[in-house]
Amino acid sequence: MPKVSEEHKEARREQILAGAQRAFARHGYEGATVARIEEETGLSRGAIFNYFENKEALFVSLVRRSSDRFVEIWLEHGYRALLEAIAHEDPDWLSVQVEAARRVRTDDRFREQITKLLEETEGRRRSRLERLAGVVRDDVPVEVVAHFLGTLANGFAFSRVTDDPMPDLGQLMTLIESGVSPRPA
Amino acid sequence: MPKVSEEHKEARREQILAGAQRAFARHGYEGATVARIEEETGLSRGAIFNYFENKEALFVSLVRRSSDRFVEIWLEHGYRALLEAIAHEDPDWLSVQVEAARRVRTDDRFREQITKLLEETEGRRRSRLERLAGVVRDDVPVEVVAHFLGTLANGFAFSRVTDDPMPDLGQLMTLIESGVSPRPA
Repeated sequence: MPKVSEEHKEARREQILAGAQRAFARHGYEGATVARIEEETGLSRGAIFNYFENKEALFVSLVRRSSDRFVEIWLEHGYRALLEAIAHEDPDWLSVQVEAARRVRTDDRFREQITKLLEETEGRRRSRLERLAGVVRDDVPVEVVAHFLGTLANGFAFSRVTDDPMPDLGQLMTLIESGVSPRPA
Repeated sequence: MPKVSEEHKEARREQILAGAQRAFARHGYEGATVARIEEETGLSRGAIFNYFENKEALFVSLVRRSSDRFVEIWLEHGYRALLEAIAHEDPDWLSVQVEAARRVRTDDRFREQITKLLEETEGRRRSRLERLAGVVRDDVPVEVVAHFLGTLANGFAFSRVTDDPMPDLGQLMTLIESGVSPRPA
């Protein structure tokens, strides 16, 4: 039996994620049936579920990939760059993530996958908070500042779903910076 | 034929809205079939669709009622009272509104109803902006301040859907007030 290299596995995993994201964005969470995911990835369900436990796990991996990318942009290039990235993200992909959030309340397998994700990423969240603590005001707990910025980013993503007109990001940033910048001595 | 009084019509309309909201919150948008709405309202589909054009129109009326109530609280009691109201709203009802937002992109009848709602409420939005303009900073257009506050409220509602831990609202308000308060002279 030929050995499957790590690179090959990684490429295959990426092929599945990219195709599945297209299927979810196009058809919604329910509408992205396994048959449609097969079609978009060009792979059989056997191959797909060799890499992911189930549809819920595949979707949550996509949410994680997407959110990791956004957090990376935030940490490397700042909060304005994050808003720009959200403003340029595929609104169909944002909208299926928003749509699927309710499943945390109604779908046990979905909630299980999200809980696992939150546990796995807890350490990284802590270290991000430490980085954030160095640059924002210190008269309010950094957890609250992070909540404020995360809530705004989610609300901003939500406004893409309904095609709300975008505000001027420079002016929006003026408000945000006034909110979180270190207080004058 | 007996005349149906205005009060009777109003009470019947309210009965339909209350029952339909329970059906949507419990079963999701798709899952709230006409049969389930009949069950929760105690009325026949004939009676229900005498008051509302279709399921989309009924749902959008509920969204409007909900959002009017929140805006009322905001204008009468301030932004913190709005956050408190969101923090105490039924998360299942919030989550079905979040879930349904995607329909603006995929469901023509739904988008039509939302467009009609936005047109009908445009005048009120303008007069709210004028009220807001009197109390917030004036170095950033009031439309951007309103967008900022609306985006935060939506993000906050979204965090209820996924049962995120709530931050201390007093501390959150400190950040928001720093963001939007009139600048010191």
